[in-house]
Amino acid sequence: MSIPDERFFPYATGLAAQTVEKHQQPQDLIFYAGWFCPFVHRSWIALEEKGIPYQYKEVNPYKKENHFLEINPKGLVPAVEYKGKALYESLIICEFLEDAYPSYTPLLPSDPFERALVRLWVDFISKSVVPAFYRVIQAQDAEKQKAGLDEFNRVLRTLSEQVKGPYFLGDQFSLVDVALAPWVARDYVLQEHRGYTREAAGAGWKEYAERLENRESVLKTQSDKEHYEEIYDRFLRNEAQCEVAKATRSGSGLP
Amino acid sequence: MSIPDERFFPYATGLAAQTVEKHQQPQDLIFYAGWFCPFVHRSWIALEEKGIPYQYKEVNPYKKENHFLEINPKGLVPAVEYKGKALYESLIICEFLEDAYPSYTPLLPSDPFERALVRLWVDFISKSVVPAFYRVIQAQDAEKQKAGLDEFNRVLRTLSEQVKGPYFLGDQFSLVDVALAPWVARDYVLQEHRGYTREAAGAGWKEYAERLENRESVLKTQSDKEHYEEIYDRFLRNEAQCEVAKATRSGSGLP
Repeated sequence: MSIPDERFFPYATGLAAQTVEKHQQPQDLIFYAGWFCPFVHRSWIALEEKGIPYQYKEVNPYKKENHFLEINPKGLVPAVEYKGKALYESLIICEFLEDAYPSYTPLLPSDPFERALVRLWVDFISKSVVPAFYRVIQAQDAEKQKAGLDEFNRVLRTLSEQVKGPYFLGDQFSLVDVALAPWVARDYVLQEHRGYTREAAGAGWKEYAERLENRESVLKTQSDKEHYEEIYDRFLRNEAQCEVAKATRSGSGLP
Repeated sequence: MSIPDERFFPYATGLAAQTVEKHQQPQDLIFYAGWFCPFVHRSWIALEEKGIPYQYKEVNPYKKENHFLEINPKGLVPAVEYKGKALYESLIICEFLEDAYPSYTPLLPSDPFERALVRLWVDFISKSVVPAFYRVIQAQDAEKQKAGLDEFNRVLRTLSEQVKGPYFLGDQFSLVDVALAPWVARDYVLQEHRGYTREAAGAGWKEYAERLENRESVLKTQSDKEHYEEIYDRFLRNEAQCEVAKATRSGSGLP
């Protein structure tokens, strides 16, 4: 029996469709993506920021094709195929792009201590900000929504205090910005349905969030808003079936 | 009121005490450690494998001293102080050591794709192997112990299938071995109290585990077995108060 999520709108639209169109030629690096997925969005922003040549291939994660499963048995997106071998996990892909394309625009600073700080804050986003986002969006009763929102604001304030401006590290757009931007670009769902405001995350957060969502690489990898709606409606009803939604429902850590 | 864990035996013993003794001189890098902590053990193994000069300082994580809290407000160990600034998180410290000491023995391969594979399996250890270890050790009733053990064996088999031998990547002792070794060195607790056997994790696992636990860097960073006992007795009764124990009890992801 098909699960509801199989009926997602099947391909990118809007500005993202134009970007997909420009990346159809065969390249050493194939990017397996789901247009709607914020984890895919991370790796996609990194590819665009770095200016790496890539071929975009849309995968429906709920209906996986044979070649994709052959190279990537877990069937996860985002994935990259590089000279016939596959890698997955959004942030590991980003680190791979740094290592494999050293002459392209870096997303990590060159100083070892600064690189470690970037990794610490990326880890904070993965373990604290992203899980809190899903707890807010999936919470059904008012009390849990309030508790989730309080926690979301708290972790955003912690992050906000570290933002040097205009981006997290200052002038350099870094992996911290990449790791966070997909959820900033989607926070309007929490604004419209869960009472979230960017002002509540502390001084400067709103301005930082606006810079992230208006960054060219973030804009050109986004589809038309209407197509995200059917996806986030399922999250808002706590009926989404992706791994992140299920992990959030079970109360365990994100996969 | 003091919590029970404050009364841990306060310093390293056995071979670890000899290693501590050799690392008392001031150095650019200060390693803040808790002799008993497997996450500390990871970074300590990395320091020893790489041969980096470091000064060892024991920190009781339940009674944090002022200088340590000043440079590391979260008060977590392992931490390193490098030219007056602090870093924490065991694996981020390991990556920092790779970046900051490029002329020392590497724990990551030079090939970008191989580096990414190492990071994928380190991530698997962090998200699957380590949490399963704590679910087994903290499970109180027979049914949960059985379920935990089944899961632990399942994830170890997944990892085992990837071991090229003698170490994970083959001849190179890598960050995958570093990330895993502290829990292999402690799996006797599960053998003695939870019915775990290394044979159940599939062909070759026992031999790989023995190579890890007998690696010089792993041996020389371990204290006398008797002093771990009081610590693991608390885990076995599900009374330990560290962050990992609390996260395991609550069913959420590891911090």
